[in-house]
Parts: sequence; C-alpha cells; structure tokens
Amino acid sequence: MNTRIQTVWRVKADPKSIEARARGIAVEQSVEMPVEPIDDAFVLDEILGRVENIREVAKGEYEVKIAQASITTGFEAGQLANMILGNTSLQDGITLVDATFPADIAKAFGGPNHGLEGMRARVKATGALSATALKPQGSTPQVLAKLASDIALGGIDYIKDDHGIANQFYSPFAERVPLIAEAVAKAAAKTGIPTRYLPSLNGNLDQQRKQIEVCRNSGVDCVLIAPMICGFSQFHTLKSENPDFVIMTHPSMGGWPMQPSFLFGKLLRLLGSDASVFANYGGRFGYSKEECRRAAGFALEDWPGIKPCVPVPAGGMLLERIPELLDFFGQGVMLLIGGSLLSAKEKITEETAKFCDAVRAYK
Amino acid sequence: MNTRIQTVWRVKADPKSIEARARGIAVEQSVEMPVEPIDDAFVLDEILGRVENIREVAKGEYEVKIAQASITTGFEAGQLANMILGNTSLQDGITLVDATFPADIAKAFGGPNHGLEGMRARVKATGALSATALKPQGSTPQVLAKLASDIALGGIDYIKDDHGIANQFYSPFAERVPLIAEAVAKAAAKTGIPTRYLPSLNGNLDQQRKQIEVCRNSGVDCVLIAPMICGFSQFHTLKSENPDFVIMTHPSMGGWPMQPSFLFGKLLRLLGSDASVFANYGGRFGYSKEECRRAAGFALEDWPGIKPCVPVPAGGMLLERIPELLDFFGQGVMLLIGGSLLSAKEKITEETAKFCDAVRAYK
Repeated sequence: MNTRIQTVWRVKADPKSIEARARGIAVEQSVEMPVEPIDDAFVLDEILGRVENIREVAKGEYEVKIAQASITTGFEAGQLANMILGNTSLQDGITLVDATFPADIAKAFGGPNHGLEGMRARVKATGALSATALKPQGSTPQVLAKLASDIALGGIDYIKDDHGIANQFYSPFAERVPLIAEAVAKAAAKTGIPTRYLPSLNGNLDQQRKQIEVCRNSGVDCVLIAPMICGFSQFHTLKSENPDFVIMTHPSMGGWPMQPSFLFGKLLRLLGSDASVFANYGGRFGYSKEECRRAAGFALEDWPGIKPCVPVPAGGMLLERIPELLDFFGQGVMLLIGGSLLSAKEKITEETAKFCDAVRAYK
Repeated sequence: MNTRIQTVWRVKADPKSIEARARGIAVEQSVEMPVEPIDDAFVLDEILGRVENIREVAKGEYEVKIAQASITTGFEAGQLANMILGNTSLQDGITLVDATFPADIAKAFGGPNHGLEGMRARVKATGALSATALKPQGSTPQVLAKLASDIALGGIDYIKDDHGIANQFYSPFAERVPLIAEAVAKAAAKTGIPTRYLPSLNGNLDQQRKQIEVCRNSGVDCVLIAPMICGFSQFHTLKSENPDFVIMTHPSMGGWPMQPSFLFGKLLRLLGSDASVFANYGGRFGYSKEECRRAAGFALEDWPGIKPCVPVPAGGMLLERIPELLDFFGQGVMLLIGGSLLSAKEKITEETAKFCDAVRAYK
C-alpha cells in the first residue's frame, strides 16, 4: 500500500477557477502532463496527486489539501523538495503552508541525531539554551578566536560562525576552526561550562566532508549548515554520515513560497536539524508572533521516531527581551543573541554573562 | 583592488524608511551586524556593502543598487547565493532583480562549457532547437524507452527526462538510462538526426557523479540538472568536472524573491548552464512576455569570456505557436514542447515530425 504525503496550500483564486487551480497543483507536482492521455493504471492510481479538500479561508483565498504519493520522492531529500514544492514554487499566489508526512517518510529521513535533549546534554544544561554568532566576516582567524574566547568566558552555551563566514582568503576554514576551537576550549575549562563552537560549513559535499574532518580533528562536535544553500540532499547526507555531530541549520535562501514555520520547524526537523534558526518576531524580519509560535510548535511537538528540534529564534534579540521570549517560547528554546552583544565591545564577557545568567535564571 | 558585484533590488517602502531599508540590505548581505562597533578598516572598506543608488520607480516602490565585495563570495557558488540574496530572501517586499558581475567573478565561475553553438553542433543544427520531455513519472524504463524511440523517430533535437523522474524503484536511474539511450541512438541512426537524450540527475554529489558515469558508459553526453534542488555548489562542481557534458538546467524550486529573468537567464548562465529552462509566457505559469524577453536577452547577450546559454521557454507550448515564438525569441532559442505532444499518443512520431519541421522550416 502506497502512502501519501498530505500537502496543504494557500491559493489565491476566484471561486470559478479554484477547482482547476487545485487540480493543476496535483498534476504539476506528480505527472506534470495532461491526464487524459495516461492509460497506465499504476500511474493513475499510485502516482497522480489527488485533491482532497478545498476550503475558502478568506475572500479570494483558499486552503487546498493534496495527497501526494510518497514513492514519487524516491525517499531522497532533494526529490522530496522537488515533489512537495518544485515547479509550483514558480507560480504566483500559491504558498505551501504545511505537510503531514506518513511514517515511511519519517523513517526514511529520520530527523535529528541529537535534538533538544542531546543539545542540552552537550553543554550540561537543563532549560533554555543560549547562543551567539562570531561576526563580522572579514575579521582574521586570530580576531575571531579572541572574540570567541571573550564570549565563552561569559559562559554561553553555543557560539556559531556567522553564516557569511565561509572559506574566504581572509579567514580560511582550515586555519580558522582549530584556532577558534582551541580558544573556546580554553575558556570553557575556566568557566566550567562546556561551551560549544559551531563552524559554518560551505561548498560542495567533498568540501563539507573535509570541513567536518577539520572539526573532528579540532575537538569540535557541532556545525552550522545552510540546507537551502547546499541543498537538502547534501544536508541529509552529512546528517546521516555524522551521527556524532550536532547540526544547527541556518535559514539563508529560505525565502521560497513556503510557510516559514513549516520549513524551519517541520521540514528541516524531518531532514535532521538539531537546532533550527529562524527570524524572530519583533526583530528586523517581518515574521508574526503567531508564525514564530507555530515554528516552535512544529519543532518541538510529539512526532513518533523523530526527536524534537530546538527552535532558535534570532534577529533583534536584546537582553531585556529574555523573560518575554522565554515566557513565549518556553524552556525548549535556544535564544540567539547577535549584534547587540557585539556592540558591547571590550565589555563583551560581562554582557555575555548577563545574557546567560538571565537565560539560566528564568523559571 | 577588490572588485564589487552590483546588485539591483526592488524594494517596497515609504519615502521615510527607504534609506534605512537600503542600508539594511547592504549590512545584512555583508557584515550582518551593527556597523558602529566595527573598527577594522579592512572590514569597513573592503567587506561592508555600500548603497550606490536609490530611485523611486513607482509609488511606494524603489530600485536600490548595492555594491557588494566580490571577495565575500570566496568565489564559490553556494556562497555567491548566500551573499547576493541569502538572508534577504526572508524579507517581505524585497526582490533581487539583477546583478552585474565583475570580470573576476565571471572568470571564477566560467559560464557554460558548450552554450548555444555547442548545443547546435551536438545535433547538427544551425537555427532554433527542438526539445521535449519523457513523461509521466511512474512509467517503467521500457515504456519510457519506447516513448523516447517514437519521439526520436520524429527527428527531435533533444529529449530530456521529466524533472520528476529521479531514482524511484519504478524507474531506477541505472536501469532506465542505458535502455533509453540505446532506443534513442537506434532511432537517431534511422533519421540521420543525432537526437540527444538528457537524463535527469538527482541526489547528492556522489550520486550525481555516479549517474554521470552511467551516462558516459551509455554513450550519453548531455544531462538535466536542477541547480535550485542540488545546490549551486554541486551544480558548478559537476559543470567543472565534466567539460565533455552539455548541462541543461531545470527551474524547479526557483521561486525565490529573485527576478526569474535574472536567475534563469544570467545567474545560471554564469554558473554553467548550457540551456536554461524557464516558464514561457502564455502557458500555465504567470511570466509576462517582457520577463521572458529579458531572460532570453540575458542568456544570449555578449559577455566577455562567457558563452551564450540557450534560453528554453517551456510550458503551454503548442504546434501553432511556433512561428509566434520564433518571431519573438529569435533563432537562438530551444522550444520545449511537452504535454501537447504526449497527447498525440500513437501518432506521436508524426506530431513530433510536424513540430520539428516547423522549427527547422522557420526563417
């Protein structure tokens, strides 16, 4: 028995055209040709997408549910994206808002290797987690290592590379990572908090595999990956090959017509994100409170066989927002503070300590 | 002297906020932190993005030009996407409409291996090219091989896999490709037209490399790749490693807030697309005539050191539209006909011949 992924779409259309529009999505995302000439029963019964429901949700706006055959994904991560959004990403007025995945899809992709409990265990935490990013790109490895040390001395849980820090000549990965890793380890030995450094991987599969080896040789067991840049196949491959590594995902290039909460909370969790960064409400991105709540809900909700993924709201984080944000997101969250910490300059260790204390003190 | 990529954006904003909005993009796409605490002259002079121009183009809509440092890309394809759109893809009301790339970027990525003249030479053509796709997915390799043979007997130039045909159990790549390649070669021997088959690659870099070996061993020298699924790094790597192969690109997952003409006509050309498929006007996608003209213009315009890429307008193609489309796009185009050919069923060879004759007869 072939299972189905139920995809949920928001479609702008008038009452006269919505049925054809919905059928159009079901066809585009499966056989991608007129149905009339198809006479193969297997294709018609087991491949062709089916419109399951159409419901008006606002004037000129409909929610459409489509049942798509799981086997068309080949149980491969890139092809999954191709089948659940693919060509329809090129259409105006259509957004993929959600999908429900059957058990065989969940089993094939497997979710996070570590998830919330694993990420807490890494840094001996029990509640919410704290994190920041090394910036700006253009800084030398030595400058970034000093910055990482100053931040780690403040007792933070996780320090990631800024996602713009790649393998540029001014900060080559193989030179930068051992230096920063050593600086963070030394600081962690002083504070007693096992602060982790997450280098940002970049390039093709060969390059990212080599970078993971550089990490392993430097005592690093966490990385940052941008799945929408390296592709879902590469991300899922690295997750599967490196069960000892924690993978935080970065949202860069995530601006498809796909509901952010679904992409960052559910889809990346399915593919193996241990902690998923997304734009927080009230910052410089336009996500609503409701959308952020939904993302965190997807990341943490019960899902048989799939570990919870840590939601990481980021952008516009300020010290004084900590109680508000922990009230809102709960204790299963990682708060990522960026620019406002860096603005503290020579007082950065103290500012970091204040931030971490506030996160840890919250009940 | 550090060169700059000039990115051009369309931004929705009011007159009071547009300057801050423009500066926000320049910062987001470079240092991604407040500028005040930065005191490193190299970062301020050579890394930080610069707003070059702001121009009102409609009420509440502005064109913003930003100069971004080429070195931040590390001259690597994934990082290029990260720097020219990246996080800003998550913002509402901002679209990347164009970019001008300096010579060092053009040299680093190199463009198509073959381009228009190479693709014409492959099939001994001198004018416009003809193409179609094997569909639907769910068909067995034997059924697809028979279909490919019937189409090739009509004398078409290029036959690609439907982009939904991946490596599913009902049509494994390693089984399908040799069968179809043989069927097409036999038909081509009969017609005298060296019809080419382009299998659709899927999966990670290891898998796509193995698939290219399957192609090579089957006498196939053209492939279809979806760069927005496999990632720009993987696409560019395969282009660089296989100078003997023609690569057609598929637009699936291309629905970022990036002007389609820029993505399909210019950016994919830069990274190495020999022929770039995009949604034609008047079909089931909503692109305007002007947008399609701009895409074809970008694909074919003079660009020192970068070969022309064949624009491949697709979707909604009908036999009777050929003169209109060749008038519109000119002879440097490939016309991709899909569903309407498949609807001919047992008359598909004759219909293909009519289509190809009409393309070749056009003056």
